[in-house]
Amino acid sequence: MPSLSSRPTIIRRSPIRRIAALLEEAKRKESIISFGGGAPSLPPPREVVEYLAKMLREEPAKAVSYTSTRGIPELRELIAQDLKKHWGVEYDPNQVLIVNGGTEGIYVALSATIEPGDEVIILDPTYLGYSEAIKLFGGKVRRLPVSVESGYQPSLEELERIISPLTKAFILLSPDNPTGRVVTEKFVRGLVDLAVKYDFWIIFDAVYKHISFGRKTPWVDAIPEARERTITINSFSKEASVPGLRIGYVTGPQEAIDAMEKIKQYISLAPSAAAQYAMIKFHEDGIKDRYLEEVVIPTYRKRRDLMYKLIKEYLPEARTVLPEGAFYFFVDMRRYLEAMNRNDEEFANRLLYRKSVVVIPGRYFGDKGKGHVRMTFVTEPEDRIEEGMRRIAAYVSSYVF
Amino acid sequence: MPSLSSRPTIIRRSPIRRIAALLEEAKRKESIISFGGGAPSLPPPREVVEYLAKMLREEPAKAVSYTSTRGIPELRELIAQDLKKHWGVEYDPNQVLIVNGGTEGIYVALSATIEPGDEVIILDPTYLGYSEAIKLFGGKVRRLPVSVESGYQPSLEELERIISPLTKAFILLSPDNPTGRVVTEKFVRGLVDLAVKYDFWIIFDAVYKHISFGRKTPWVDAIPEARERTITINSFSKEASVPGLRIGYVTGPQEAIDAMEKIKQYISLAPSAAAQYAMIKFHEDGIKDRYLEEVVIPTYRKRRDLMYKLIKEYLPEARTVLPEGAFYFFVDMRRYLEAMNRNDEEFANRLLYRKSVVVIPGRYFGDKGKGHVRMTFVTEPEDRIEEGMRRIAAYVSSYVF
Repeated sequence: MPSLSSRPTIIRRSPIRRIAALLEEAKRKESIISFGGGAPSLPPPREVVEYLAKMLREEPAKAVSYTSTRGIPELRELIAQDLKKHWGVEYDPNQVLIVNGGTEGIYVALSATIEPGDEVIILDPTYLGYSEAIKLFGGKVRRLPVSVESGYQPSLEELERIISPLTKAFILLSPDNPTGRVVTEKFVRGLVDLAVKYDFWIIFDAVYKHISFGRKTPWVDAIPEARERTITINSFSKEASVPGLRIGYVTGPQEAIDAMEKIKQYISLAPSAAAQYAMIKFHEDGIKDRYLEEVVIPTYRKRRDLMYKLIKEYLPEARTVLPEGAFYFFVDMRRYLEAMNRNDEEFANRLLYRKSVVVIPGRYFGDKGKGHVRMTFVTEPEDRIEEGMRRIAAYVSSYVF
Repeated sequence: MPSLSSRPTIIRRSPIRRIAALLEEAKRKESIISFGGGAPSLPPPREVVEYLAKMLREEPAKAVSYTSTRGIPELRELIAQDLKKHWGVEYDPNQVLIVNGGTEGIYVALSATIEPGDEVIILDPTYLGYSEAIKLFGGKVRRLPVSVESGYQPSLEELERIISPLTKAFILLSPDNPTGRVVTEKFVRGLVDLAVKYDFWIIFDAVYKHISFGRKTPWVDAIPEARERTITINSFSKEASVPGLRIGYVTGPQEAIDAMEKIKQYISLAPSAAAQYAMIKFHEDGIKDRYLEEVVIPTYRKRRDLMYKLIKEYLPEARTVLPEGAFYFFVDMRRYLEAMNRNDEEFANRLLYRKSVVVIPGRYFGDKGKGHVRMTFVTEPEDRIEEGMRRIAAYVSSYVF
């Protein structure tokens, strides 16, 4: 075999994707309770799947035809209206680029901005895909630590200390994975000031934007000075419960959108037509707002509150923060893990093996995540959240007591 | 705005994608006859869209859920069986990576093999996406010319002359875009010998593999020595008429597949679940073979034969080759263009403006394509092929005679 490039060796395989593959092949799937990958278990809005099913039957060629790389104009128009309505930002539909989910959004944003040697600042812990994508472009990863003590809120002072002349971008995820933290207005304002002062990009990952249980996330480029230096990543996976349709969008300055579109032509040509038509329907007839207000948020809020109660009850020595948004509890388990003489990864592996419960080791999200586990509350219904938490409690107490 | 990376400046915008976007926005779409983008106008097999529509209605959460990055095991198993049946090659399902269409296949194959400075040999003319994707990875493009005189068949002698110590890969597309040429068994055998001798990868782009009107394309890695140095790109866009579902697959040595999967995790996470389920159905109940034999090939063969007849009739001074496969005529128009004092791009622009017929300028496929145009016969039905060719003839004769 001729040699491979160095790219595969400079990145690591996603451990969460490895778990996804294992679960897909597991024979005993039913008995496994997953607090692992953040996969919504809710079906998408009825009207959306009905619309797509009908279109597949009645206009099959249209439903599966090529579209432009930027995406169907009607969908981009609806998205621009929706951004204005929910976040007060005005975007021309040409400043909206449809992408194959948030992952492709991050990838094209980094591709269009990062040169080898550039530094990108991300939080620690944070979504594990950022560091690997940055490395694929030769970028250097700098990490800004956050902790349970400060409610996983980043500090502007610490941020300014790690900014260097090589800083090219900062990635902000709010609501956050893995912590559920919604960033403060004050932080965003300060971040924008720093981005202007030191001339770097803000990549605002807003894939969980509509999953919040109280305070909405501040919107970065609602601040005028941010507009020319912010690329925002959006996904329909979470808000429409369609992770497997692989559809999202990116907004940003026109020149950046044009650059990302150009690159995307050679990565994936164009987004899925079927997924785009489904998302056109999602924005019509008030379906989106109704689905979020009546189905998604109430369902997830109940599950979140239940998991919170059970963590307090079954794992009283654990420390966590009630998530204001997104899908996850990030739980500091160090008191238990020390008593068990296990690290978070060993704990997660054995918990799956012994009790058939999936949790994600905190170290996968950064060094500061060591001793923590991430548990999602959106994949399982309430009875199985109860059952899973009971199994975790039984497993822990078999060691600790 | 902070600076963008250099990537957008080293590649060019795809002129074919620009035309796709223009057509999408055109008000007078109906009157435009497109011999442009190779978009099949046939609907996909009835059973496939029915199956997907039913699944969306009855199991919506499953139809749009995350899958593993490599793809649903059942689909990969069916693909492995299909490759054995049609091409006599044995692949383990783990050596099949599902991708978001042929474009992503090419992109991940190059990402996993090409370092900055490596040379990749492609034909001239050839599919315009290769050169830009190579450049995105810092690779250098070397071109092997082919011409209408030799039926667009590449020469082994000329190939060996441009191989250098930096040659890392050769991209072979058969059946070919833009020429419709199916490569010879002799060329493939010689290519494999050279790849072994000079230790380079063969990237075999087989996206048109089932679109042939006589002789099937030789299969590169059916030759044992090719197995460890060939990555094959497959797409369902052409064979199932589902370009807008964005689904295809890649095969290759296990280590290369593992590397490509790892990279893909950070490009697009996972392929579309809905598209994968549709393609599972495509492989069942003999649907695929029946659809190809009874619908696709007879329909396209008729259109191809009609267009050939009309080219001979209306453009007697043009030179072309009856395509053995794929979707296109590549027509040497130099006799006309010289008389008209226009190059191929000017000709195509004016033809669209004056006569509302889309053809693709040959120069977009490489310098050797200058003076040619590419015309697809799969997008329009026969009456519109007739009408389009009449308009071209009228346009040309208004100048020439």
